[in-house]
Amino acid sequence: MSTDFVRRADEVTEGVGLLRQAAPEAMKGFAALGVAATTSRALDAKTKELMALAIGIAVHCDGCVAYHTRAALKHGATREEVAETVALALYMGGGPAAVYGADALRAYDQMSRDARA
Amino acid sequence: MSTDFVRRADEVTEGVGLLRQAAPEAMKGFAALGVAATTSRALDAKTKELMALAIGIAVHCDGCVAYHTRAALKHGATREEVAETVALALYMGGGPAAVYGADALRAYDQMSRDARA
Amino acid sequence: MSTDFVRRADEVTEGVGLLRQAAPEAMKGFAALGVAATTSRALDAKTKELMALAIGIAVHCDGCVAYHTRAALKHGATREEVAETVALALYMGGGPAAVYGADALRAYDQMSRDARA
Amino acid sequence: MSTDFVRRADEVTEGVGLLRQAAPEAMKGFAALGVAATTSRALDAKTKELMALAIGIAVHCDGCVAYHTRAALKHGATREEVAETVALALYMGGGPAAVYGADALRAYDQMSRDARA
Amino acid sequence: MSTDFVRRADEVTEGVGLLRQAAPEAMKGFAALGVAATTSRALDAKTKELMALAIGIAVHCDGCVAYHTRAALKHGATREEVAETVALALYMGGGPAAVYGADALRAYDQMSRDARA
Amino acid sequence: MSTDFVRRADEVTEGVGLLRQAAPEAMKGFAALGVAATTSRALDAKTKELMALAIGIAVHCDGCVAYHTRAALKHGATREEVAETVALALYMGGGPAAVYGADALRAYDQMSRDARA
Repeated sequence: MSTDFVRRADEVTEGVGLLRQAAPEAMKGFAALGVAATTSRALDAKTKELMALAIGIAVHCDGCVAYHTRAALKHGATREEVAETVALALYMGGGPAAVYGADALRAYDQMSRDARA
Repeated sequence: MSTDFVRRADEVTEGVGLLRQAAPEAMKGFAALGVAATTSRALDAKTKELMALAIGIAVHCDGCVAYHTRAALKHGATREEVAETVALALYMGGGPAAVYGADALRAYDQMSRDARA
Repeated sequence: MSTDFVRRADEVTEGVGLLRQAAPEAMKGFAALGVAATTSRALDAKTKELMALAIGIAVHCDGCVAYHTRAALKHGATREEVAETVALALYMGGGPAAVYGADALRAYDQMSRDARA
Repeated sequence: MSTDFVRRADEVTEGVGLLRQAAPEAMKGFAALGVAATTSRALDAKTKELMALAIGIAVHCDGCVAYHTRAALKHGATREEVAETVALALYMGGGPAAVYGADALRAYDQMSRDARA
Repeated sequence: MSTDFVRRADEVTEGVGLLRQAAPEAMKGFAALGVAATTSRALDAKTKELMALAIGIAVHCDGCVAYHTRAALKHGATREEVAETVALALYMGGGPAAVYGADALRAYDQMSRDARA
Repeated sequence: MSTDFVRRADEVTEGVGLLRQAAPEAMKGFAALGVAATTSRALDAKTKELMALAIGIAVHCDGCVAYHTRAALKHGATREEVAETVALALYMGGGPAAVYGADALRAYDQMSRDARA
């Protein structure tokens, strides 16, 4: 399996930068929404990133899977938590969620290996 | 706003019962998947139901919103937690998530009122 | 369960008529596509309508569920065939497919009752 | 056809108000995004509302169809423009877009009748 | 066109294996659902795999297209049957279904060539 | 960023050719629908291609993004118009629309560079 999920996540980050230049006001609103939605309050940030990952799997968005797996990892998500997030997405998404959910686990393994190196 | 979310959630439960009779083996597998996916382990059941709600909002499934709002409430989810789940879904789903996410809050308010009565 | 699936299917048919007046050339192309796609050839028309139903369930389109359940019934689909179509959609769609799939069975039961009456 | 699209659009507006109270910071970001995205610049506001309508049809969101048909009407969209938007959505969405697209025309007819009354 | 659909299908199979280790109970339920849903009963297994392919096209899941095209081929689906499945998905999915449906044909041609070799 | 969007758009065009051979009647209807839907009438062809792009972003179809960005460019769409289309899709689609929307801008930049060369 050769997909480079670190690079895929980087492309998403670069893409957001590209949009910020091209549509600065819309992206300012989107960024404010993102900060408000993912900051720890009643639910902690790690849980919220796992939720974003679950949605990314359910809507078949490969860039979202790479990006939010990395964000969940940064907030301390364990492999078990990612696996249970995938299982929940599978229950809510069936076969396609197995395809995108397996990528979440692959991304986690690749990214946590990089983090340890 | 007249939608009866309790009834909508009941219809989903009845629908699952109908499918159980019509496709017993498939539903047995699906039920096992559902139990495994929503049982507390690394992530607790409340968090998992909020995740299922987030996906229900993101994929525009009104029955899922009613059903998983009720399940989250049964597992002790607060209004703040539901509101933050909606905010996360909005970040991952834009305008349509506002439509389905508002229904999650309406369902929560209706169902928690019924529970108190 | 009070949803009137016959009426829901009728609304879809009326809606197609409305579009035919408002966008006649586009609808002429769409109609030609529909005829070509659902006519018996290598696969028979009943199978094709069940496939359309499976997609309608998977993409969470309630009007499609009512409309293509009726079309499948008209082409002789049995309740078992509809139930297996729902089971397949459940495997490919998870929880939301249970919601929309149960409606396919309800529609089938309602419509086959009407047909017998 | 009895659906009250004016009321459906009102429910969306009320839902946004409900979310504004429950998740004020996220909704502030979302509102800023909405304003930036729908204001006339290189593309005019009417075109943008028709685009939002096209997406609402393509993602099977009935509340979005009611809400953005009304917004397009307010920005001066004609019935022909709505019909061509539906035709474009049909080309990009197939059968389900016929279901949700017909509702856009029904909403337009109902709302423009109300506006004239 | 350089996409290796055999490899894409293999990645899906490997992904399922990865999930089986990470979330064994959920995957056990999912496997039972998959077996029940795809076994020949009122509808035969080939038809069911073509249905799964139709859904994979309609929900824009490239891994599903590779995986279920191979499964349909294994159950004896002809190129004509795959083409008609794509045509049905096109009728229910519009433009995006042409993109993913063409991949189904490419996968079929590649896989049936491999099988003959 | 190494994705070759020109090639991705070419693959879509080739795919349509492949389908035309395999399912000629369905594709004839689809082509008629496409011509009717994208021809200038009340809305001009450029606006319609931008709408198709907005839908392609919203439904997470990478081939559609490449194909309709090229078509919009051919009809004279400016970078600002593409950026505003992406902003609108972001408002209607959230995070995943940022992923696919950034690709629309990348495709535009790549294709307009090629056109100038």
